[in-house]
Parts: sequence; C-alpha cells; structure tokens
Amino acid sequence: MITKSQVKYIQSLGQKKFRDDLGLFVAEGPKIINELLETIPSHLVGLFATEDGMNNQPQWRKLDGSQVTIFTESDLERISFLPSPNSVLGVFKKTKPLVPVFSRQLALMLDGLQDPGNLGTIIRIADWFGISQLICSGDTADAFAPKVIQSSMGSIARVQLCYTDLPALIHAHPEIRLIAASLHGNPLQETGKLKEGVIVIGNESKGIRKEVLEHCAQKITIPRIGKAESLNAAVATGIILSHLL
Amino acid sequence: MITKSQVKYIQSLGQKKFRDDLGLFVAEGPKIINELLETIPSHLVGLFATEDGMNNQPQWRKLDGSQVTIFTESDLERISFLPSPNSVLGVFKKTKPLVPVFSRQLALMLDGLQDPGNLGTIIRIADWFGISQLICSGDTADAFAPKVIQSSMGSIARVQLCYTDLPALIHAHPEIRLIAASLHGNPLQETGKLKEGVIVIGNESKGIRKEVLEHCAQKITIPRIGKAESLNAAVATGIILSHLL
Repeated sequence: MITKSQVKYIQSLGQKKFRDDLGLFVAEGPKIINELLETIPSHLVGLFATEDGMNNQPQWRKLDGSQVTIFTESDLERISFLPSPNSVLGVFKKTKPLVPVFSRQLALMLDGLQDPGNLGTIIRIADWFGISQLICSGDTADAFAPKVIQSSMGSIARVQLCYTDLPALIHAHPEIRLIAASLHGNPLQETGKLKEGVIVIGNESKGIRKEVLEHCAQKITIPRIGKAESLNAAVATGIILSHLL
Repeated sequence: MITKSQVKYIQSLGQKKFRDDLGLFVAEGPKIINELLETIPSHLVGLFATEDGMNNQPQWRKLDGSQVTIFTESDLERISFLPSPNSVLGVFKKTKPLVPVFSRQLALMLDGLQDPGNLGTIIRIADWFGISQLICSGDTADAFAPKVIQSSMGSIARVQLCYTDLPALIHAHPEIRLIAASLHGNPLQETGKLKEGVIVIGNESKGIRKEVLEHCAQKITIPRIGKAESLNAAVATGIILSHLL
C-alpha cells in the first residue's frame, strides 16, 4: 500500500526544483529500471512495483526490502508520469554532474535544446557512439525530467552531463575545438574522422546562439538531397556522429 | 465564431476511422499550414485561425473566404490536438496513396513502426534525402494522425505513402531488392552507395517480422562503439540513409 506522502513525494519529482533540491529522479518500466540497477545500483532510493511486476522480475526480490513498495495498478496510475503506466517506477539518486575534460576525446555540446524527447534520444545516441560527455547550456531541457529519462532508455547512467554558461566555459577554455552542426557549413562527408573536439548542436528552431557560433572553428552540414526544411535535432546528431567517428 | 458541428467534425478527425471515411486530415501551426498551402494548395478544405494568426499571415486573407473561419483563442483550445495550440488549424484532403514503383529508385519500407513521433520524423528524413516512396505495413501508425503530421513538419505532402500487406507485396514483386536495418548485419560503412532498392525499418522493440526479414538480400548494422542497447528507429533511418545515398 502506498501512502499519501509517498504519492506527494513522487509527484513532486516531476518538477525540476524538487529534483534539484532532493537530488533524485524517477524512471519507469522494467527495461530502464533493470538497466539503472545494473549500471548505478547504489543510486536506488525506492522501487514501487505491482505484484505482477515483481513476479516478472524475480531479481527485484533480492533488493533491500526497505527500498521496495508493492502496490496496486491503480496506485501506479496515480503516481506514474506515463500515459500507459508499466508495472514499476523507481526513484534514483541523480548521477554526479560532469567536470568537462577537453583533451583526447569527443564531446557533445547542446545549446538551448528544448524538447525533452530530443534530449533523451541524444543521450542514447551519445551512449551508442561511446561519447561520455554532454555539456548543456543552462536553458537546455533538464536531463532528469521524466520524459527525458524515458527516451534515454537507461543511457542517462552512462553519459555524464553538466549544465553551464556556454560562452563563459568557452572563454575559460580557449583550447576547445568547437565544431558546429549548421545548415550552412561544409558537407559532412568532406570533414574526415575526428578524435577530439566538441560537436555543438543548437536549439530546434533558432540553432546555435551567436556567442557560441562565433567561436566554432568549423561548421558542418548534412547535405540535403530533397526538400525538407530541416532535420530533427536528434536525427542530425546521430547522422553527424556516425560520419565523424 | 465556430459552430458545435464544426467542433465535432474537427475532433472526429483525431480518429483514423473518420480520417479514412472523410479522406481528410488536420495540421496545426502557421509553419506546417504554409508548407501545405504551398505544396498542395488545392487540398485545403478549411482554415480555422485566430484574428492574431490572420494578422501575422496576411497571405491567408487571399484564400477563398468560404474556406476560412476566424475564431477565438478559447475556440482553438477546444478543437486543437496540441498541448499548446498555435493560432491556426487547417483541414486538408489526404494525399493519394502511392502505387509503388521499384525500379531505379530507393524507397523505405516500415514494418510495424508504432510511434507516431517516429513515423513523422521518418517522413521528414525521407523528404530531406529525396526519397519519395514509403511503403508501410498495415499495423504501422497512421501517417495522417495529428501527431504524425506535426512531427513530419509538412513533408507529408512531398512523400508518397501506401499501407499494404508486406509479405503479399514482396511475393508479388520478387524483383524488389530488400535491405534490412538490423542489429546483426554488415557494418553500414562497408555497404557502399545505393541507387535502387528498398530499405526496411522494423518495429521499435520487435524489429522486422520473419516473413519480411527472410526475403531481405542484405542486412546492415550501424556499428556500436558505446553501450546503448539500441538506437531510436528514426535516428537509425537517418544514419542509414546518410551513408547509403
């Protein structure tokens, strides 16, 4: 049985302010929960599962009992952030923010990316291509929002993120080689492979802000053959990484 | 002022049955509306805009007056399919279904793709890369659903789609060269450029069904460097097309 205060506590984690204050986030569904339990097991704070959910995942019986609450489908509907709740919800401690290191590796920089689904998908893409650093502007969507966690599919535990003032970071690190994803750059196929540098992805409609763009050593473009005005930001990120790596 | 029957008629277009019966679909927001008015102007059935919306887009004043209804923000909230309605909603006649042609061009085949956002993004990717044919299994999401239209960003008017029984189509056309996007195929980079053939993208969790997969002449994979279990279906489609074209 779930208590009123548990409902209130979990629902509060839908808001960034409470996620930041408590240092916690919510993930839902057995697939993501299992991936997080494998990658950051010590971060589990509470698991809320239906009896059916527990029966389908017997390994959860081995968790510390004080961390597990078994409850009904209707309880789950009350606390879930998903349109179709899926047998389990977990509360986890947030991973530590990244301290960026710019030598001998590739990183991604997100400048004002707004859509939570795009951010989650980009975290998953970074994880697929082995990029462990994601540097976000302060106005990028929050990586620990429920929608981002759902579309990152557990990759949030393997990709390190920080939120920072990008122009200030660039000013403090003149050695960073910035490569802008742009609609008006050199064709991606002519860029060659990259071993280090930071690939910058801009806001879905406005692109990369001037104060960042003017420090980019290179601008690259995915050549358009047809007529669509633009590509989705996450799709563009995937295409660029697949060519540069 | 919008009438009760107009509200009912527009809301009914949220359901596939009514879209199919009436041969109509809904698009929202000035960007998509303008793209559709440019690409398929004769398909406009009705434009429902706020006074502000009309003032921002003076070219709509030139439309046939009988097609335009000016209404209030609160009317828009009543009929919109978006969480944040955006000054205009248009009803358009659906584009004609595709009769597939398999020679001397590339096409995409979607086998059970479920997520409307993924489908819309794939339509936009196809349009970016100049692929005009999208062949979908009967259980793929409906391309004219409001969420698909929103994420296709107007590309729906430039990409031709058909919904059909894929195994039957493949049986009737043994000449089709099918290339499967798979987690267990040859590395994409070793595939070389393609001028004709059909690239098959499977369901988000189950992949391509056996009856289709067994007819694929080739399986290609996006090599994984990191640890994510999979890539989003739309991202994978974008990456594959950018390498094969």
